[in-house]
Amino acid sequence: MVYLTRKEQFAASHRLFNPKFSDKKNFEVFGKCANPNGHGHNYELSVTIVGTPDIETGMIMDLKKLSDLLEKELLEKVDHKHLNMDVDFLREIIPTAENLAKEFWKILVPKITNGKLYSIVLAESGANIVEYRGE
Amino acid sequence: MVYLTRKEQFAASHRLFNPKFSDKKNFEVFGKCANPNGHGHNYELSVTIVGTPDIETGMIMDLKKLSDLLEKELLEKVDHKHLNMDVDFLREIIPTAENLAKEFWKILVPKITNGKLYSIVLAESGANIVEYRGE
Amino acid sequence: MVYLTRKEQFAASHRLFNPKFSDKKNFEVFGKCANPNGHGHNYELSVTIVGTPDIETGMIMDLKKLSDLLEKELLEKVDHKHLNMDVDFLREIIPTAENLAKEFWKILVPKITNGKLYSIVLAESGANIVEYRGE
Amino acid sequence: MVYLTRKEQFAASHRLFNPKFSDKKNFEVFGKCANPNGHGHNYELSVTIVGTPDIETGMIMDLKKLSDLLEKELLEKVDHKHLNMDVDFLREIIPTAENLAKEFWKILVPKITNGKLYSIVLAESGANIVEYRGE
Amino acid sequence: MVYLTRKEQFAASHRLFNPKFSDKKNFEVFGKCANPNGHGHNYELSVTIVGTPDIETGMIMDLKKLSDLLEKELLEKVDHKHLNMDVDFLREIIPTAENLAKEFWKILVPKITNGKLYSIVLAESGANIVEYRGE
Amino acid sequence: MVYLTRKEQFAASHRLFNPKFSDKKNFEVFGKCANPNGHGHNYELSVTIVGTPDIETGMIMDLKKLSDLLEKELLEKVDHKHLNMDVDFLREIIPTAENLAKEFWKILVPKITNGKLYSIVLAESGANIVEYRGE
Repeated sequence: MVYLTRKEQFAASHRLFNPKFSDKKNFEVFGKCANPNGHGHNYELSVTIVGTPDIETGMIMDLKKLSDLLEKELLEKVDHKHLNMDVDFLREIIPTAENLAKEFWKILVPKITNGKLYSIVLAESGANIVEYRGE
Repeated sequence: MVYLTRKEQFAASHRLFNPKFSDKKNFEVFGKCANPNGHGHNYELSVTIVGTPDIETGMIMDLKKLSDLLEKELLEKVDHKHLNMDVDFLREIIPTAENLAKEFWKILVPKITNGKLYSIVLAESGANIVEYRGE
Repeated sequence: MVYLTRKEQFAASHRLFNPKFSDKKNFEVFGKCANPNGHGHNYELSVTIVGTPDIETGMIMDLKKLSDLLEKELLEKVDHKHLNMDVDFLREIIPTAENLAKEFWKILVPKITNGKLYSIVLAESGANIVEYRGE
Repeated sequence: MVYLTRKEQFAASHRLFNPKFSDKKNFEVFGKCANPNGHGHNYELSVTIVGTPDIETGMIMDLKKLSDLLEKELLEKVDHKHLNMDVDFLREIIPTAENLAKEFWKILVPKITNGKLYSIVLAESGANIVEYRGE
Repeated sequence: MVYLTRKEQFAASHRLFNPKFSDKKNFEVFGKCANPNGHGHNYELSVTIVGTPDIETGMIMDLKKLSDLLEKELLEKVDHKHLNMDVDFLREIIPTAENLAKEFWKILVPKITNGKLYSIVLAESGANIVEYRGE
Repeated sequence: MVYLTRKEQFAASHRLFNPKFSDKKNFEVFGKCANPNGHGHNYELSVTIVGTPDIETGMIMDLKKLSDLLEKELLEKVDHKHLNMDVDFLREIIPTAENLAKEFWKILVPKITNGKLYSIVLAESGANIVEYRGE
């Protein structure tokens, strides 16, 4: 078994707030991330699949196909978008990195057929990183 | 003369559009950057001053003071903000990296008194970078 | 369960030597790291906690609080310090990256109450990295 | 138990193709990586060993010795080489990152005597990364 | 005037040798870079243009157009290629980073019509970097 | 004319203080950098020379020779050392990055005979960088 990771980037804006909270409580809980007009990030997404390399090709999965899959299923939906307003699968979700990683997992897990999805790492910045492994 | 650079980060959202253009023309000119709800970046700001190190301290300018100045004059105004909506000095400006660098220069140039402001580099991503030197 | 990582930096000096060894043996074992006047590094510390995001906030732990905790419990004790001479909890310890990671773990493990401490990664340089998971 | 990682770089060229495939099929399977004259990468190799730090030295393994071992066993055989043509232990192997990581593992596993080899990470570029853990 | 930089990557192999030199002299002059079967790199190319941002768009040049231009004029000719064998405009050239940067300049300089080409930076690795400014 | 840059790293400790100042004034001027036992950094040194590539080799200067020169003239004197105590050419100097860059310049300028020394960039951390060009 070998682990294969592909890294992609996307640029998006979001706002952290819970509509059930008062404005005051939203600022207490989410700090400057609750700014009503939102803010944004260059997100770095790393998707890892695990599998056995094919004997005839030496590859778990063609990286070009993995990259195209990520583009189609995720990046074209979130890149240069407002995550709270423009993305169907994120409606009703507070777009923290934790929740984004879990929603990305749900979308990708049925699409990975060479090998198995192992991990989704999402970095909001160089200092803030989450990982979800479907556990 | 020595050049001294301080790098800082901020996370912000913006939308590229010219209110004088039609929606159609905005998308032709600015592509996905014209998305009405905006998108965002982790901006990396590098500010370079040039001067002669003080004989008694070996420093052009105390880096802590330079960092505090950048925090007060720029970062607390743009970090976790929407650049089109939340920032006084960017009203009436299309917030391209080119224009941001020029506006940041105008704010900083009178505040640098140890040495002289030499350059502002603003990276919107690892691939897209602008520099303004007041020329 | 989601893994949440926060990265911080600190700059410190240290000397690798065992006071029970002769000077000759210290140089044999630790090479140039045994230089009597010490040397230093920009350390990069990555602290990972694991937990279930809160339904109301979408967060395992407020990253600002995690960052403040790391500042108070670790960084203000080690940043811009000599690890052999200035740090109470490192007395009697040879300050290799391996030992630093273990001592940092001991300090943090009782302080992490949202989720559980999962891993401490300490990079002495881009090429030399240790990880401790409390095993 | 502590995990200790050493990162090294090497520059090499390779060509992905299966001699049993037709030229047409090689291009279908491997795309531009099948270019007959090959192409190349700056590979980044991260080798992780796991063990208990020695009480007298605070180290799992002297990083200088680990680095020298990697130089002798791997780097001087693959650095500035054509992986399909110049490397004895890669003959008969399609030099995908997956296969390289597995072959590197076979070479290193009997040589690591302080601690145990835990993982080999090989990055072909910043976006394409594989990991092998001997599973 | 603002400087606008776009960074791109390509993976290629090359061999440094002068056909007028003996094998022995080629190894003396070029060291392991003279390996007959070649070796390779992930090259990082940074192209900087200088100009005045357009008042109506705030841009010197659409970065998407600059990126497309680099793709068409340079990257599709050199990416996943052997620089000595597969690239028309590099025949008769020893493909050192110095020479590559100069040849890339010649190709790009007539194509940059918004603003002016200012600099080409080519990094063969994180440690080896050249810059050509047409001087 | 082409600019050729070589990047190297070294790990060192230093203390910023002026022996003519009182302890109190040293802390006012240098902050935590005045800690009596010192602190340290992984310094990144970039040395740029400018020259015309040789027609027969395509190189301004053999990078291996430039790297060896930096090792012999600078790195073996400062790597894994205390800059205030262990380095002859830094006695009487407050080892700020500004002063280090100037002293490194003085040492290198007579040694560069292929081309001319153009710039020394010294990064104390990712955020704090100085450049000296002999002006």
